[in-house]
Formats: sequence, C-alpha cells, structure tokens
Amino acid sequence: MRRSRFFLPTLRDNPKEAEIVSHRLMLRAGMVRQASAGIYSWLPMGFRVLKNIERIVREEQDRAGNQEVLMPTIQSAELWQQSGRYNAYGPEMLRIRDRHDREMLYGPTNEELITDIFRNGVKSYRDLPQKLYHIQWKFRDEVRPRFGVMRGREFLMKDAYSFDLDYESARRAYQVQFVTYLRTFARMGLRAIPMEADTGPIGGDLSHEFIILAETGESEVFCDREFLDYDLLGREIDYEDPAAVGEVVDYFTKLYARTDEKHEQAVFETAVPEARRYQGRGIEVGHIFYFGTKYSKPFGARVATPDGQEVEVHSGSYGIGVSRLVGAIIEASHDESGIVWPEAVAPFKVGLINLKAGDADCDKACEGAYGALQGAGVETLYDETEERPGAKFAEMDLIGLPWQLILGPRGLKNGVVELKRRATGEREEISLESALARLTA
Amino acid sequence: MRRSRFFLPTLRDNPKEAEIVSHRLMLRAGMVRQASAGIYSWLPMGFRVLKNIERIVREEQDRAGNQEVLMPTIQSAELWQQSGRYNAYGPEMLRIRDRHDREMLYGPTNEELITDIFRNGVKSYRDLPQKLYHIQWKFRDEVRPRFGVMRGREFLMKDAYSFDLDYESARRAYQVQFVTYLRTFARMGLRAIPMEADTGPIGGDLSHEFIILAETGESEVFCDREFLDYDLLGREIDYEDPAAVGEVVDYFTKLYARTDEKHEQAVFETAVPEARRYQGRGIEVGHIFYFGTKYSKPFGARVATPDGQEVEVHSGSYGIGVSRLVGAIIEASHDESGIVWPEAVAPFKVGLINLKAGDADCDKACEGAYGALQGAGVETLYDETEERPGAKFAEMDLIGLPWQLILGPRGLKNGVVELKRRATGEREEISLESALARLTA
Repeated sequence: MRRSRFFLPTLRDNPKEAEIVSHRLMLRAGMVRQASAGIYSWLPMGFRVLKNIERIVREEQDRAGNQEVLMPTIQSAELWQQSGRYNAYGPEMLRIRDRHDREMLYGPTNEELITDIFRNGVKSYRDLPQKLYHIQWKFRDEVRPRFGVMRGREFLMKDAYSFDLDYESARRAYQVQFVTYLRTFARMGLRAIPMEADTGPIGGDLSHEFIILAETGESEVFCDREFLDYDLLGREIDYEDPAAVGEVVDYFTKLYARTDEKHEQAVFETAVPEARRYQGRGIEVGHIFYFGTKYSKPFGARVATPDGQEVEVHSGSYGIGVSRLVGAIIEASHDESGIVWPEAVAPFKVGLINLKAGDADCDKACEGAYGALQGAGVETLYDETEERPGAKFAEMDLIGLPWQLILGPRGLKNGVVELKRRATGEREEISLESALARLTA
Repeated sequence: MRRSRFFLPTLRDNPKEAEIVSHRLMLRAGMVRQASAGIYSWLPMGFRVLKNIERIVREEQDRAGNQEVLMPTIQSAELWQQSGRYNAYGPEMLRIRDRHDREMLYGPTNEELITDIFRNGVKSYRDLPQKLYHIQWKFRDEVRPRFGVMRGREFLMKDAYSFDLDYESARRAYQVQFVTYLRTFARMGLRAIPMEADTGPIGGDLSHEFIILAETGESEVFCDREFLDYDLLGREIDYEDPAAVGEVVDYFTKLYARTDEKHEQAVFETAVPEARRYQGRGIEVGHIFYFGTKYSKPFGARVATPDGQEVEVHSGSYGIGVSRLVGAIIEASHDESGIVWPEAVAPFKVGLINLKAGDADCDKACEGAYGALQGAGVETLYDETEERPGAKFAEMDLIGLPWQLILGPRGLKNGVVELKRRATGEREEISLESALARLTA
C-alpha cells in the first residue's frame, strides 16, 4: 500500500478524551474514530489489525473442531424471558422495540439463541458432542464507556458453545477450549495466564479468565513465574487425546495465579518459592465457563441416550474479546514513540521509507524494493510522500510496524540501506539485497 | 468435514412458512434458521456460502483500490438529524434509546457516518480520491419481512463510498464500481444486468441497479441478448485507465435493459432486433448511486483545491446485498432436487459418499480419497454415516455441492467409482485415480 493512497488520518497531539495509552495510540495512529460514546469506526489501519486477530482466533477455533456459525445481533426478548435473564440482565442490555412494538434486544451474549438452535437441530446422543462458535458484534450499554475499544459498548466477541451428553465429556470440551485459548493468545505474541474466576451472570461452577500481562492493566495479578516460561507453541497437542489435553490443563491450574480480587498473600507465599513469585498487572481478554444444564433445562434441550432415556445436555460457553484485544495488545506492547506490533497481528510487516521522494535513483530503488516485497507477499506500507524524513520516522514509529526499511540517496550511493527493527530500535546498514532476503525469508 | 460431525440439521419436508424456493431450500438444506421475524442465524452450511460471497465481493473491491473499514451497527441520531434523513427515513429505521435516553438507531446505510469520518480526516485535494467500503450488518424494519434472507430485516451489505474533487473524477469512480460489479457477479456464476434506476432515498442523479436473471425473480426484465453473451471475466480491465473503463460502461449502458417499471415496449422493439429481445425475470443484488454534494454540503465535507479555494467533495455510494445474494443465487440456480451451487460460492466443492460404511474395503478407499482431497485443499464433505444410499443421494442433491464422488463395494471390485456433476446430473464410471485427478486439477 502506498502511503499517499492509504486512508490514514494520524494525529500529532494526544486526544484529550483518551485516558489510557492504547486509546491514545489508536486515535493517533488513525486506527479508529469514535462514532458515539463507546462506539467506534475502524479505519483501514485498525481494521487490518482487527482482521488479523479475528483470523488467529478463527484458525485456532477451527483447529479444535469448533464449527463456525453466525447468529444475528438483534434478538427477540422471548428467549431471554424463557431463561429468566431478560429481567436479570439490568440496564447494560440494550432493549429495543420494533415497529410492531415487539420487545427485542441487541445481544450481549448468545447462550439463549444457540441453545434454541441446538434443541431444534439435535435429538440424539449420536450427534454429540457439538461445538459451535461465532464472531459477532455485541452490545453492552455501559453506564460510562471509556478506555476506547477496551471497554466499548459495541464490541466484537468470539463466543463458542459446547453441548455434551454428560459432565465428563463437557469437562473435556472445557479443557480443549482452555488449551485453545493458551495457543490463541500465544500466537498473538501474548503471555496469557488462566485464573480461576467467578462465573457472574453466565452462571455455572467451573470458570477461568485469561489475563494477559501489561503494565497498564486494569487488575493486579499474582502468579508463579513458571507461567512466563512455558512455551506452548513449541508443542503439538492432539485435541482428540483427553490425556494430552488434561496434562496441559493440570499443569496450568496447579500453579498459583490470582487477581487481586482472589489473591491471598499467605497462600501465594506457601505455594510459590520467593524467586518464582511474579506480581504485575493484567488485562482480561478471555473467559470460559462450564454451566452444566443451566440453559438446557429451561429450553428443554434434551437428547436421547443409548438406552432410550432423555437427558438434558451439559454446556459451556467460551468468550474472547476480539476488538478488546486490539487495545490490550497495545497496552502490552508499546513504548514512548508509539505502538510495537507483534508480527502476527501487525497491519503491515514492513514500512518502506523513501527518504528523498523525487530523487530518480532513490525512487527507482524504492519502487524495486516495494515490488519485490509485494511480489513475495510481504504486506508493506510504502511511504513515497514528500514529507520530511523526521516526520516519516515519527509516523512509522507511531504506527509500530515490525520492520522499517529505509532508503536514502546517500546510503544507496554506498550500496547500503537501513533496516530497523521496531521492537528493539536496532538498526543495521546492509545491502538492499540482504535486507530484502531477510524480510522475505 | 465428516458428515457425522457436521452440524447440518436438514429438513425432509417443505417448511410451511417459506413462500419462495430459496427460502424453502435454505431451511431444508440446514443453511439458516429463523431467530425472529426477518432475522436469521446462519448455520455452518449457510455460513460457508455467505463467507464465499463476502470474499469475492472483498477481493473485487480491493482490486479496484477501495479500502476496507468497518463502521459500527449502532449510530447516534445526531448525524441523521444533520442530513435531514432522521425524520425522512420512516418506520423502516430501527430507532433505539440507550440507558441515558439518547436517540440511537441501527444503521440501514452509512452515508452520514462515512461523510463524518471523511471530513475529519481529509482536508486537501492531495488526499483525493478516497474510496472506502465496509461489509457490515444493517437493519431495515420491514413491515412484513418474508422470502427468507431475500428480504430480511437484519442483512449483510457491502457499501462503498467515493469522495472526489469534482464531477468528472466522481463519474470515473462511479464507472469503476460499475465494472467492478459486473466482475463481482460474474465470478459468482451470475449474469448481472445493469439497469438505469431511480435514486430513491439515497438521492442523486446517476444510478444503476444490477439485476441477476432468475425465473423466480421479483421483477420482469426486458433486455438485449447481447448482455447474456458478453464475457467480462475474459478481459483484463485496467481500472487506472478511464478510457478502458468507460468503454465497458458505454457498451453496457447503450444496450436496452429495463425492468417492468421503466419498460417501454415501443422503444424496446425499435432498439433491439427481434431475435435479440430477451424477456425474463430478475432479482436486484446491487445498486450504485452518484449523489454529488448531497451529503458533503450539510456536513461541510470540503477540501482545499490547488488554487487555495475550498470545495465540497462529490460522492457516490455503492451497495451489494451480500446475504441477499445467498438466496438470489439459489433462485437462479436450483432444480426439483435442490440447490445447484456455482463452484465459486459452493460450501464444499465435493460430496464424497460412502455407499457402505462399515465395509472395510469401502471405508479404506473412502478414507484414502478423503485424505487425498483434503491434502490437495479441495473442500470436501464426506458422508461416512450409516444412512441408506437413497437418503445420502437425496441429501447430496439437496445441498447442491458441484461434484459427488460415490464409492461402493461393487464398483470398487471392478476398479471404478462414480463421479456425478450436480449441475447436469451427468454420471461417469471411472477409476478412483482419474476421479481424484479431475477434482484436484
């Protein structure tokens, strides 16, 4: 993408309304614009990151055998009356009356609707287990929306739902999602720590929230440093093998990890040797629940068993805050100059800077480099504008692409270009060929 | 995907509520379920088709240099009051009050919001033209929603918006979308005919609707048969070349093509020789508008010109009914046994039928074929269930995958399998190797 054509309205100054760093940086880097309180439009730069996160979430859900569906945003109140949550949910639920004065709502979550779909489609144990998910916009009418996409009103969530014959197989489904979540966040360059959680309005009796570490996080976390060293992506885990899955879950659930709400200093000190005690801050990016027959009972979601009985299915739900993750990743990965994108979610891998647009040799070398990167499928933002170098450097640092490839007339005369790694600030003067070889490897 | 694991709740009988063939077939083939009046959940089979259509629309928008953004579904009423459409829009607009009693609405279209984004981000002619699009759910509170996803209340639309310095460049943007639309529909296996249209509530003075031919279509169309013979995909059109784009547009706009609303038999007979007169039925799947400064004026969307003046930008909007297309394609492509998917949008390319699950040789051959197809990246639905052959054939015909690969013990003994092409019903007995070579070519 050529910078001159890219719709990227960056801001020089910090917007006053933004209280936290990710919100400030997302506005400054032209990623989002507020449409109304707690509701955002995603501009091309932000949209690219959102899509990358969504893709990773989807790939890991698919890998674990979940099937993607798509439920609507607007739901009828009826199902929520049936589950008893229509009144229980409170003012966070956006309630709507349509032109025929029927009570509708903008779904804040989908346990009711998916259970309705399930009960109409599945009647026999032979069709179990079922694991369905969707990635859809939700609405929660927060009383004071703030912190940008980290606590917006309209937000994108992946929610998965499992349906099993009994507790044992439901627990296995829960455990597979547990491991899937660890992999999902690890692929985004995040360290996610599963913590025992309260079940809240979803209900149920087994629940973990997944917290990623970020200095600016909303809650204080206490955990064993072993969490920080574990390399999950290095392992191939067969989701069809309950023992392999259980082993990973056991490993993680045995280690101490609690947010300030549940933290007990004495237990922490007993359970974790001093050198391994980690205390920091974190952000919740996922939450998983097992809630048994809480919804299958009121909805009559029953299946025939092998011996001709009928039983209510056991279920769980599994959420990842997809749009929230965009902000959370920035909270976890930025410096004073701007965003530092992990490569897996970066909007472009490379920022190509032409230090002297209009100089024939420099333009030619840049066009050649741009063509080579594009040809190799490397997503590149090419700054070919006539801005001065200082402004170009500052903007590239702000938007946080993993690599900057910098070409200027002086270097080219000496046969070198500059390759800068955004995360470390490390710069190397090498030949253009070596730089391209590195970036396209 | 194995049939036994796929969430595919098909229906044997025609659902009473479904008045048209696409609605009946989508329910019977387990593609969608109604969540409430005019609002649908997309089950895995339907979701796959929806995503394929969305992907083609996106690829063609990107190819034409449009940049993808994502605006929210919920908008504040303020912008709509500014444009004057808040009161004008009528009861089809779903109006909402949030917990602070602020007036909101579920966007039925996005001219206001995108113009607001544009005016805050672009100030100079140097940043023009801009072409932005998004693919997002919309809501129109139809008084009597019916015909399934063809006239639903919550529906997925691609809407693009162009911003140009003057009429001439705006007209070029319009023409590029015109050609993009022809390509987009052609890639889905559809014959789309652009017809001069009224501009309706969007406003403006240049507008075409794109109608695909389907016997069961909602409107009667009259056109020159030349439309049906033109092969657009065979041509490489350079969107940067106004003359090349204009030539295609001229060709299409010169030929007679009108719906019954605008049809004039005398003009038709004068303009088109008898042998080339086509009369049939069609479905609207796209609509493009040029509306000049209709929105830039009230929103003050102005840019500085090269000579230091300020002018209001000229705009157009360009819609494709993504979810509607799922139904429209079925209307255009089905027979008495079920759906006949064009390959480009099919949920799977191949349906693999095991005629005798449990028979060791047959299972082994099927597993081998399934592995080979998967390995070659061919999307395959493998029916390995113990249903009787008749039920398997009927279901495969119903769901309409382009190819059926049928393996049974008798054929295998003779070294042959059956390869059936759904569109023609043509069957061939060939070796498994030849069949796989054909399907993976």
